[in-house]
Amino acid sequence: MREVFHQSLEDVQSRLVEIAELVTIAMDKASTAFEKSNVALAEEVIEADIIIDEKAVALDELAIEILARQQPVARDLRIVVSALRMSASLERMGDIAEHVAQLVRMRFPERVVPHGLKATFTKMGELDVAAARTLTELLRSEDLALAEEIREIDDQIDALHVSVFEKVLSDSWDHEASATVDATLASRFHERFGDHAVSVAKKVVYLATGDWATHDQEIDTTGVADD
Amino acid sequence: MREVFHQSLEDVQSRLVEIAELVTIAMDKASTAFEKSNVALAEEVIEADIIIDEKAVALDELAIEILARQQPVARDLRIVVSALRMSASLERMGDIAEHVAQLVRMRFPERVVPHGLKATFTKMGELDVAAARTLTELLRSEDLALAEEIREIDDQIDALHVSVFEKVLSDSWDHEASATVDATLASRFHERFGDHAVSVAKKVVYLATGDWATHDQEIDTTGVADD
Repeated sequence: MREVFHQSLEDVQSRLVEIAELVTIAMDKASTAFEKSNVALAEEVIEADIIIDEKAVALDELAIEILARQQPVARDLRIVVSALRMSASLERMGDIAEHVAQLVRMRFPERVVPHGLKATFTKMGELDVAAARTLTELLRSEDLALAEEIREIDDQIDALHVSVFEKVLSDSWDHEASATVDATLASRFHERFGDHAVSVAKKVVYLATGDWATHDQEIDTTGVADD
Repeated sequence: MREVFHQSLEDVQSRLVEIAELVTIAMDKASTAFEKSNVALAEEVIEADIIIDEKAVALDELAIEILARQQPVARDLRIVVSALRMSASLERMGDIAEHVAQLVRMRFPERVVPHGLKATFTKMGELDVAAARTLTELLRSEDLALAEEIREIDDQIDALHVSVFEKVLSDSWDHEASATVDATLASRFHERFGDHAVSVAKKVVYLATGDWATHDQEIDTTGVADD
């Protein structure tokens, strides 16, 4: 029974890694589409999101099946419940990549954001992709040092998010309202993507350290801060 | 054992209702604070959010304890897992009410949005409160007709959300960028609050109808649409 459970957990882990990889690819493509106003690439991201959604649903079903058949307790139970939460966060990260792609499609053939912010959003996109890639590796290796890396990447994303608002609210900002709307939404999407990566990373860390109360508190605090 | 489980579920249900009530109060106050630029009321909402967070954490812990001690299967298991997801959505609704209040505090003593959009946001706030109040009643009574009411309220919120962007992007919109940023964020917060209410309502319905696959698909679809 124990062995069966162990195999089930490996299945859960490999599925989380697989979804994280798809999310990384989605944000990588969405960022490129955003930078180059590549509507074909944006369409790819939008069409592919359903795959991430379906894999998240399948993982949830597996987790529920494990709870029903193997009735884990204590740490094992926490692992399975956390898998349900992680799949929800990863699915959300996929949605956000799709939203970035939708902005590109909505404005095409115009660029989503004016040149003044192009470098900022290119960097934000790179950082989001780095966060997702590092999260994938954290889920695969359970090397907890990677969680700290993700937090540092997210700090850089947050700083850029603040800089976008400073720019948009500065006297030098003379663009039309649509550019302001797009910059506001795009910046928020990029920021939240990073926040979700941190949220998943925290779950991995707290599963390893077993500090459940802090674990849940941290998630809620993240929730308050992020959304 | 069955009786114990039944009592546990009643405890879970009453906690969900309690959190939904607090969320309703939070959005009611946040909307009033937003309309009147009442920073004291905004502070109340911001300070009170931690209570919602703590009650959501306590509910999650109770759900995990039920899974560990009573090891429910089949529909009972779905109910407990759904409670975990509902508490996450309700906690998020509380966060969104807090974000609306934070906008009020950030702009005070200025109004968050210009007069041209005041009526729209007042209506959006009323609809969000109506959605939360109806959701509270749905959780209490399990009268599934209320789920359809919530969906109709959300449709009205979505229509107003679209109208905000039409207004902001129209030639008649001559406000500074900060007003555009605030209107964009405030409208998105109000829209997502309604989406979360629909998401929780769907869980109640699918728990009653037992159509799990659709249940999960629906949640993911909502996710794609909302966030």
